Amino acid sequence: MKKQRVLTGVTTTGIPHLGNYVGAIRPAIRAAAQDNVESYLFLANYHGIIKCHEPEQIHQSTQAVAATWLACGLDTERTTFYRQSDIPEILELNWILTCITGKGLMNRAHAYKAAVDKNLAENQDPDFEIEMGLYSYPILMTADIIMFNAHTVPVGRDQIQHVEMARDIAQRFNHRFGKNIFTLPEVQIDENVELLVGLDGRKMSKSYGNTIELFLTPKQRQKAVNKIVTNLKEPNVPKFKGESAIFEIYQAFATPDEYAEFEKQLNEGLAWGEAKKLLAAKIGEELDDKTDAYHDLIANPKRIEDILQAGAAKARVQARELLVEVKDAVGIRTLA
Amino acid sequence: MKKQRVLTGVTTTGIPHLGNYVGAIRPAIRAAAQDNVESYLFLANYHGIIKCHEPEQIHQSTQAVAATWLACGLDTERTTFYRQSDIPEILELNWILTCITGKGLMNRAHAYKAAVDKNLAENQDPDFEIEMGLYSYPILMTADIIMFNAHTVPVGRDQIQHVEMARDIAQRFNHRFGKNIFTLPEVQIDENVELLVGLDGRKMSKSYGNTIELFLTPKQRQKAVNKIVTNLKEPNVPKFKGESAIFEIYQAFATPDEYAEFEKQLNEGLAWGEAKKLLAAKIGEELDDKTDAYHDLIANPKRIEDILQAGAAKARVQARELLVEVKDAVGIRTLA
Repeated sequence: MKKQRVLTGVTTTGIPHLGNYVGAIRPAIRAAAQDNVESYLFLANYHGIIKCHEPEQIHQSTQAVAATWLACGLDTERTTFYRQSDIPEILELNWILTCITGKGLMNRAHAYKAAVDKNLAENQDPDFEIEMGLYSYPILMTADIIMFNAHTVPVGRDQIQHVEMARDIAQRFNHRFGKNIFTLPEVQIDENVELLVGLDGRKMSKSYGNTIELFLTPKQRQKAVNKIVTNLKEPNVPKFKGESAIFEIYQAFATPDEYAEFEKQLNEGLAWGEAKKLLAAKIGEELDDKTDAYHDLIANPKRIEDILQAGAAKARVQARELLVEVKDAVGIRTLA
Repeated sequence: MKKQRVLTGVTTTGIPHLGNYVGAIRPAIRAAAQDNVESYLFLANYHGIIKCHEPEQIHQSTQAVAATWLACGLDTERTTFYRQSDIPEILELNWILTCITGKGLMNRAHAYKAAVDKNLAENQDPDFEIEMGLYSYPILMTADIIMFNAHTVPVGRDQIQHVEMARDIAQRFNHRFGKNIFTLPEVQIDENVELLVGLDGRKMSKSYGNTIELFLTPKQRQKAVNKIVTNLKEPNVPKFKGESAIFEIYQAFATPDEYAEFEKQLNEGLAWGEAKKLLAAKIGEELDDKTDAYHDLIANPKRIEDILQAGAAKARVQARELLVEVKDAVGIRTLA
C-alpha cells in the first residue's frame, strides 16, 4: 500500500499551551507514527509575518514551537521537519503559482472577505489597512502543500477552503501546461479532534486568556491548575461533571478507567482542592519528562537549529527536483 | 564621488529588433560604460511568465535577449548581468515585501486599472480573467530594485509609477522595522531617448508589424530595408525628410555629418532604391560584427549560460547579505 503523504504547517506567532498540546500536537505526533503515513511538518514563519510585525515574537515563537514538538516526541527520522524559510524553493513556486492564479479566486477567500466586511461595517474603504500578505497567502499555502505533493492536509473546518484553493491552483497548472506535475491534495477533517477546555470551561484559547502553560515545574503547574474555576461546594458534597473544567482536563490526560475513578471520587464528595492536586499530578505524569526535554532544548538552541537544518536538507532535495520540473514547464530553463 | 547604481530589467517575451537596439540597448550599454555608474542588468523571466504562457517562447526569448546584449558589447566585467530566476533571494524578498504592502497600493497600479476598465467596458466582472501575477507584479519589481539598493532606475514614462511604488514599499519597510535597510530608488527619465521609427514611419514596434530584425545577413538586411515605405517620386526628383522613414533610420546610425550628406543627396534627387542601399550598408557597418557575435553565441548557448551563472554568483553575494538583514528585521532568524 502506498504511503499517504500528510503535511501540516504550524504558524509561528505564539507559544503552544496545553490546549494546543491536546488538540493538535499530541494527535499529530501519534498520527505520524502510523506505518502507512509519511509526514511533513513545518514551522510556517513566512505565514507568521503576515499578521505579526514583532520580530522578537516571531523569533521566540519559532524556537518555542520547534522545541515543543521535539520535546513532545516528534520522530524526526519519520517526519520531515523543517522551517518554511529554509526552503527558498517554496517562495519561487509561490511566484510561479501567483502567475496562474485568478484574482477572482483570492477575492473569495474567507479571511479576506471577513476583513472587507469589517471595513464596510465601519464605513471604511473595503481594502482599508488590508495588506497583500493577507490577500495572497492562499497562494503561499498552495505552494507549501503542492511543493511536496502532499496527499492529505489535516485541517480544521475553517481551513477547508484553503485546501480546495490549493487543488484548484494545482489543477490549473497541470491543465495549462499539459503536465501532471502536481498531486491534487485532499482535505482531512478529523471529526474527533479533541478540543481542550480552559480554566473557565470555554475552549482553551489565548484570546480568552484561559490557558494553562504547557511546560511548567510541578509547583507552577499546581498553581495554574488551582485557577480552574469551580463552584463553592464544600468537601464531602457530591460534585458533578459540568460544574468545573477539572473533569474534562483530567479526562484528556487519563485512561478511561482512571477518569472513571476520578469522576467517582468527585461524585462522592472529593474536595475541589484535592481534585486539583490529583489533576496537576496526572498532567505531570505525561508532561514532566517533556518539560525537562523542552527546557534542555531551549537552553541549547543549536540542537534545535541542527535538527531543522537536517530537515531542510532532506526537504530541499525533493523541493529542488520538483521546482526544476515546474520551471521547465513554464519556460524558466538553463540555456545549455 | 559615489557611484550611481543603475538597475535595468528586460522582460523575456520577445526577440529584440532594431527599434529596441536604438531605443534601449545601445544607450544602456553606453551609459553603463560611464565611470560614475555601477550598472545591473537582468533578464526578467519571472516577469515574462506573467503574460506569456508559452514556455518555448520564454526560453527562446531569454536566450535571444541575453545573446543580443552580449553581442552588442555589454561589458560584463562592469555590469552585473544576471537572470532573475537565478537569484531565489528575490522571490523570498518578494514575499516579505508582500506582507507589508497595502492592498490599496496595488489597486491603484495602472496596468491593473487598465485591465479592470476593459472588463467594465465589456460588462464583465471587474476582475474577469485577471491573474494575480498582473495584480502583484509591482511588488516583484520592488524586490528586483531594492534587493540591490539601486539608486536609479531608467524607465519610460509608463513605468514611473512602479518606481514610485518601490519607494513607497521600501520606505514602509524601513519605517515599520525601524531600520534603514533599503535605499529609496529614484526614477531616471531619459527625455532624449531615441525612438526609432519603423517601416511605415510610426514608432517601430512589434505590435505595428513594422520592425526590422536586428541580426541579419547583408542580403537579408537589404531586403528588410527595401520594405521601408516611400512615395512614388522618380530618381532625380528632390526628396525630403517626412516623405519616408529612411531619413530617420539613417540618422540613427550615422554621425551628424554623414547624415547631412545623406539628406543632401536625397534633396538633390537620389533614387529611393539607391538611398536604401546606402542605408543597409550604414546599418551593416554598425551591426555586421555584432551579428556574427550573436550567431556565435546562439550556436554556443553554454557560453551564454556560463556568463549568466557568473553574473548570478556575483549578484547573489550581495542578495544573500541583504536578505539576511531583511529576514532578521522581520524575525526570520536562525536559532543559534
